[in-house]
Amino acid sequence: MRRDITDFSSKALTPVRLVPLAFAVTILIGASLLMLPASRASDNTDQMPALFTAVSAVCVTGLITVDTATFWSPFGQGVILALIQVGGFGIMTLATLLALLVRKRLGIRSQLVAQSESHTVNFGDVRRVLTRVAAIMAVVEGVTAIILTARFRIAYDDDLPTALWHGAFHSISAFNNAGFSLFSDNLIPFVDDPWIIVPISTAIILGAIGFPVIIELLRKSPYKKTWTIHTRLTIYGTLLLLALGITLFAAFEWNRPETLGPLSAGGKLVAAIGGGVFPRTAGFNSINYGVAAPETLLITNILMFIGGGSAGTAGGIKITTFLVLGFAIWNEIRGREQVSINNRSIASSVQRQALSVALLGIGAVILGTVLLLVSTDYGFEQVLFESVSAFATVGLSTGITYHLPHSAQFVLMALMFIGRIGTITVAAALALTNKPVLYRLPEERPIIG
Amino acid sequence: MRRDITDFSSKALTPVRLVPLAFAVTILIGASLLMLPASRASDNTDQMPALFTAVSAVCVTGLITVDTATFWSPFGQGVILALIQVGGFGIMTLATLLALLVRKRLGIRSQLVAQSESHTVNFGDVRRVLTRVAAIMAVVEGVTAIILTARFRIAYDDDLPTALWHGAFHSISAFNNAGFSLFSDNLIPFVDDPWIIVPISTAIILGAIGFPVIIELLRKSPYKKTWTIHTRLTIYGTLLLLALGITLFAAFEWNRPETLGPLSAGGKLVAAIGGGVFPRTAGFNSINYGVAAPETLLITNILMFIGGGSAGTAGGIKITTFLVLGFAIWNEIRGREQVSINNRSIASSVQRQALSVALLGIGAVILGTVLLLVSTDYGFEQVLFESVSAFATVGLSTGITYHLPHSAQFVLMALMFIGRIGTITVAAALALTNKPVLYRLPEERPIIG
Ligand SMILES: [K+]
Ligand SMILES: [K+]
Repeated sequence: MRRDITDFSSKALTPVRLVPLAFAVTILIGASLLMLPASRASDNTDQMPALFTAVSAVCVTGLITVDTATFWSPFGQGVILALIQVGGFGIMTLATLLALLVRKRLGIRSQLVAQSESHTVNFGDVRRVLTRVAAIMAVVEGVTAIILTARFRIAYDDDLPTALWHGAFHSISAFNNAGFSLFSDNLIPFVDDPWIIVPISTAIILGAIGFPVIIELLRKSPYKKTWTIHTRLTIYGTLLLLALGITLFAAFEWNRPETLGPLSAGGKLVAAIGGGVFPRTAGFNSINYGVAAPETLLITNILMFIGGGSAGTAGGIKITTFLVLGFAIWNEIRGREQVSINNRSIASSVQRQALSVALLGIGAVILGTVLLLVSTDYGFEQVLFESVSAFATVGLSTGITYHLPHSAQFVLMALMFIGRIGTITVAAALALTNKPVLYRLPEERPIIG
Repeated sequence: MRRDITDFSSKALTPVRLVPLAFAVTILIGASLLMLPASRASDNTDQMPALFTAVSAVCVTGLITVDTATFWSPFGQGVILALIQVGGFGIMTLATLLALLVRKRLGIRSQLVAQSESHTVNFGDVRRVLTRVAAIMAVVEGVTAIILTARFRIAYDDDLPTALWHGAFHSISAFNNAGFSLFSDNLIPFVDDPWIIVPISTAIILGAIGFPVIIELLRKSPYKKTWTIHTRLTIYGTLLLLALGITLFAAFEWNRPETLGPLSAGGKLVAAIGGGVFPRTAGFNSINYGVAAPETLLITNILMFIGGGSAGTAGGIKITTFLVLGFAIWNEIRGREQVSINNRSIASSVQRQALSVALLGIGAVILGTVLLLVSTDYGFEQVLFESVSAFATVGLSTGITYHLPHSAQFVLMALMFIGRIGTITVAAALALTNKPVLYRLPEERPIIG
């Protein structure tokens, strides 16, 4: 069984290979639908936007080379919405199932499904995960859609069908961390409207926190001492990154006339919530990042790269990956060989996986940035932001995506695909291929630092 | 014994604390000398350049806020040269002695000195390291100075005293990877002169490769199968980074009119050698990095951050740190729990030290960049380049150092100091404080990726 997963010459369809295949097929179907004339609002016949938009929607990124509001017909917008829903549902269920597979192979009892003692993921497990993810999605998206619809109807004078369509689209786009919007200016018109920004931010955070954490919170007493380390890292990490992101965004943009300057104090606060929540990794924008301060872009880059929780709709290397590395260093500084968090130790193979996911992620972003630099005339800051945004499936942009040549668009598509499925498949593949040590080689200690 | 090193409340002067103290004292003496009127060529009385230059010289960085050629008198230039020599000699000997201390404490036979079986570093060891480092410095700097003096005398019509002074200054600045120059345009006038660029590059590489590697090469047969892993990683890593740096620099700048465009093909090649060698981490510049392509700046950032060999005059996180992490990922991808290189395994504590040094380095650069962004109006690209250059004690700049406010100068001084002594003291402190595991905590596996 194990051999199948590592033996890349084998033709067996291993679980780890199923994920990229499923995403590739979905993207091709989506691109085909978007290539239909019925999907277009204009008579533009360029087919590149269909492919790029399909990748961006299925990978729930939100980077766009054409305006969603005006380029696509309502049918085309419906296709995009379906791709977002399928992409978000797909990543949440497949990442959960991969994590479950790893746990079962390693013989670890898991909270993710009712306990069955088999060491493979069976049909019952799959069904349980699918129905529970669907139920959570339906509830969060439904509630968010109702609030947004009411707000669009009452405060913005949309007629009811329009309000419903806007409400449903943005609620689904939010929970799936997709960042697509039916407004040409994305959420900039609503920068200081708490009735839009807060429900959307809530849906984003719930989608980003990940299915395993939601299930654990629903199942267990709220008494946090019973939480697993995974849930603790994700919850506390989310709170920490939100506090950090909102505070620094507010500090850097509060008085800048290009962004928050003209708003009231309350409006600035609402805008700062968006500025802290959207990079992790929904990708809506309620300010124009093309005129944001360089320090804001840098902090946003870091938040985007770290991303959200595992087995949710968020991208990035994930909070647990980041925090496991942080705790590894902290324990190293204290001179402890075991990495411990709250009186639990972290398996050393998990630390190595975190190192690999993080450094391969840095490598992908750097390679993508170099390729974008040589294929365009844009500056380093814009290109790095675009590269991180694509890899972490965020969708924020300083505004250059619309003007990129095809070569650069292919670089971004590759980054989105690798970022979306790479982190989860690399981590699962590494966990599943760990071979026991059969012999010890003589040890050396090269000088470090 | 061990307690002294970890117990930070203790007042004992541990070896790990001796290094920052020695550097701080040397900087204060140097700054005092540079504050003397005799050190100035002008009647400028601003004392900030004295402090900044002293930090830059002792940390062998080469960032400057005033022109070395015109601001300082010959006496001041002599002080700077002495600080470079003391700083380079200090870092090479202290880093070697720290590595030796780590090895002896861990009971590992070391190539660094004649074998004595004690577990502490004794006076004989210190004397042997000091005399050998001094001998190597004298030989390399002497030969380089003779070649450069001859070239300045013959091709540039310097009178003999001037040629000697220029030759000695640039040879010492090269071997110590300091990057200070007596020419206002640094090495730009010599961009395509192989008789200047090649001897300087050779001295830089020998200084950067580190004392432990030089000693091993001098002692052993050239038959590489007997090399330690440390020497193999350093030699092959140096060759790889040089090839990569020279090739990409040539590829990105070959035809650009701002840089290599006007040169002959041979001249471009000589210039590319400089472009590949100087960022690791000598910091001479033979082109104006203010007009380099963004992709060149990005590659240069990466070369600067990685830096040179351990226990040499180069900065950065060091080649071994970078390669140990690379091999850790490679072995993880192949599903092996042991990290092996050439049939030797790398101690897992060494891997954790490498992770800590690299990620703390990334953290220092990011923090420095944020602080520089909020204290100046420069763009992200310029500021990141400056921050990496300071941390890795390189000294390259896009040209903003001259115009930075005092607050930003203090950020750079902190980065230079942390970069110079931080990587070696952190690595040694981590190695010396590793505590044995006395009990095992229950293990958990948070989901990664
Ligand atoms: K997104
Ligand atoms: K330097």
